[in-house]
Amino acid sequence: MSTVRQRFDVPFDFPVHFTRDVFGANSTLLLDELLRGTTTAPKVAVVLDGGLVAACPALPGRVTATLDRGGARLRRPSPPRIVPGGEPCKSDPRHLQALQQAIAEDGLCRHSTLVAVGGGALLDLAGFVAATAHRGVRLIRVPSTVLAQDDAGLGVKNGVNAYGRKNYLGTFAPPWAVLVDHSLLATLPLREVRSGLAEAVKVAVLRDGAFFAALERDAAALTRGEAAALEPAIRRGAELHLEHIRGGGDPFELGSARPLDFGHWTAHRLEELTDGGLRHGEAVAIGVALDSLLARDAGLLPGPIAERICALLAALGLPLHHPALEALDVADALDRFREHLGGELTITWPTGLGRSTEVHAVEVAAVRRAVAELARRVVRAPERSDGGAPGPKARVTPVPAELRP
Amino acid sequence: MSTVRQRFDVPFDFPVHFTRDVFGANSTLLLDELLRGTTTAPKVAVVLDGGLVAACPALPGRVTATLDRGGARLRRPSPPRIVPGGEPCKSDPRHLQALQQAIAEDGLCRHSTLVAVGGGALLDLAGFVAATAHRGVRLIRVPSTVLAQDDAGLGVKNGVNAYGRKNYLGTFAPPWAVLVDHSLLATLPLREVRSGLAEAVKVAVLRDGAFFAALERDAAALTRGEAAALEPAIRRGAELHLEHIRGGGDPFELGSARPLDFGHWTAHRLEELTDGGLRHGEAVAIGVALDSLLARDAGLLPGPIAERICALLAALGLPLHHPALEALDVADALDRFREHLGGELTITWPTGLGRSTEVHAVEVAAVRRAVAELARRVVRAPERSDGGAPGPKARVTPVPAELRP
Repeated sequence: MSTVRQRFDVPFDFPVHFTRDVFGANSTLLLDELLRGTTTAPKVAVVLDGGLVAACPALPGRVTATLDRGGARLRRPSPPRIVPGGEPCKSDPRHLQALQQAIAEDGLCRHSTLVAVGGGALLDLAGFVAATAHRGVRLIRVPSTVLAQDDAGLGVKNGVNAYGRKNYLGTFAPPWAVLVDHSLLATLPLREVRSGLAEAVKVAVLRDGAFFAALERDAAALTRGEAAALEPAIRRGAELHLEHIRGGGDPFELGSARPLDFGHWTAHRLEELTDGGLRHGEAVAIGVALDSLLARDAGLLPGPIAERICALLAALGLPLHHPALEALDVADALDRFREHLGGELTITWPTGLGRSTEVHAVEVAAVRRAVAELARRVVRAPERSDGGAPGPKARVTPVPAELRP
Repeated sequence: MSTVRQRFDVPFDFPVHFTRDVFGANSTLLLDELLRGTTTAPKVAVVLDGGLVAACPALPGRVTATLDRGGARLRRPSPPRIVPGGEPCKSDPRHLQALQQAIAEDGLCRHSTLVAVGGGALLDLAGFVAATAHRGVRLIRVPSTVLAQDDAGLGVKNGVNAYGRKNYLGTFAPPWAVLVDHSLLATLPLREVRSGLAEAVKVAVLRDGAFFAALERDAAALTRGEAAALEPAIRRGAELHLEHIRGGGDPFELGSARPLDFGHWTAHRLEELTDGGLRHGEAVAIGVALDSLLARDAGLLPGPIAERICALLAALGLPLHHPALEALDVADALDRFREHLGGELTITWPTGLGRSTEVHAVEVAAVRRAVAELARRVVRAPERSDGGAPGPKARVTPVPAELRP
């Protein structure tokens, strides 16, 4: 027997721009990115999140006008396509097939670009389509929600739900570019704003105590969606997620751990159990609260820090509990989480603000106790300022004065 | 506006073992690879090429016996599954969905392994399933044909046919390991043996004149499938393909060129136009012959070298012409080839033995002249020693004595 060892590195390099008005009359950013590295007029296809278009009916026209300024330097076989946003676009295979067929008919090649504008779910779907067409056409992501701008739209993963599992089909595929356009947040419902902040809290707890304190300080403005507080929070959350992918040593997650998936073993199952009744960020908030109590009860996290985490989530209008938690099959949820990552069960718990550790087992009885404690903490319904539909049993525990920074 | 530049390298590292009797009573190679890097008993699923199982009915039992020796160190949720081999398994989406569903039901995680044993098409299908399940379960390829052992089973690509295009859906995904088991070739029909040699001829022309001369020297033994000639030829063809992926600087093909796809712009269309009537290697042989004449007529390749290339293909029992060539829409074939790679049309032509260059345009009239010349060269039907079905109009032009090394 003889053996050839195939070793090589594949370099990836893409920009994440933080900006406003990508589809404004004066912006050339999208055109610059579409034309970067091309020698012949590349083809462009556009997919827009239906939820965003409903809130901003002028968007398709503005996108078209932006591309029109590229003149003959671009080819656009079809007008922008609109796909329903949110988790349903990842769960119904007809959306996947329709988008695959559409860009096949457009004749996109590997130097052509799919531009996707929307929330994390739409970006996940479009990313899977782009990554698997001709083994990868270029993808420019324009995330339009807080969650997509501070986390979901920045990474190197895509996926759709299939065979009863969230994100079962997907790949690791870095985008060509990400254009984080804060002006797209203007029409976002406050429930979505708050939901997206859960990932910022999560990464602040694990990586940056000063950022956590800033979120506590600005919680009231954040929960009202005020841009002066929201944009720096998104930016810092995004930076921490980007740093982790760039510097964490395992961008394609070949190991057993996902060091930023704090709270996510519960969150993934809660999303499935509530059939989308909980937004991803809301489910993450509950998961972060639960894991914080578990880490405290395991002697890993000081009690006052666990209190501050729960208090900040509540102050941001995020839920700490949901009735589906009572029905959670803990062993099954842990095994599904383990299966998706592969190898040994590995869960990240905070040990302080900006510090974390990994654990490889969670006691079912401990989870039951923590769930009961979260149920008791639900003291009153949140004040709602946006007039939207009631949130998913979200109730606020005020930040205790002695715990504020 | 501010910008974060996301730059990182992803390292890949996998072994390609050249061996015999992977499923023999004394081999531990498969178990060693399945257990490498695992801490808990990993799950294993197996998919076998139906064509191989038909020729070797004992194979499923031998695979099972090999895995049985792993005892409790492995978990096997299901017995080996058999999928029809050849291009149909890539074209019918039911095979894709059935295999996706099967390994989802098996509960494979990212540290679990799908073992695929078969020809290039089955490995392409299994590779796409493995690469997209949980964003990548491990894949061990055991290529069972000459084509898969010297080329198709060694690389970092996978794919299925969809939306009217060959390999339209696929990814770049290095395998966990490749086990090249020459003993699996024993039952391979001679037509398949010869077809697989076309990729060896192709890479010899482009990269290694001494290897080309060795193929000329051994042509008679190769066309009879004699192991003493076949195994070194496979090994050298494989090494050249592996070197290109490892050292070529673009393993995931982000540029416009595929420097080893000599002859492939014709080959891909001929496979489609003949609806599988031509094997991939046969179509490559025709494409290599055609591009050699085109390179000669463009003044890039000396005429005697073009003669030697055509003569070697013919001596290996490979076709140089097919009636479908007459119906080929050249502009369409070139554009489909360009679209799949992306960017500018880039075709590799030899300039001598072991040397090549890139061209970016092909004249339709020149192709017509070369096709007519290939039709005239078809002088007599090949002698067949395997008693199989007649090949696809394959006819042999003997190697002129003055051109032999």
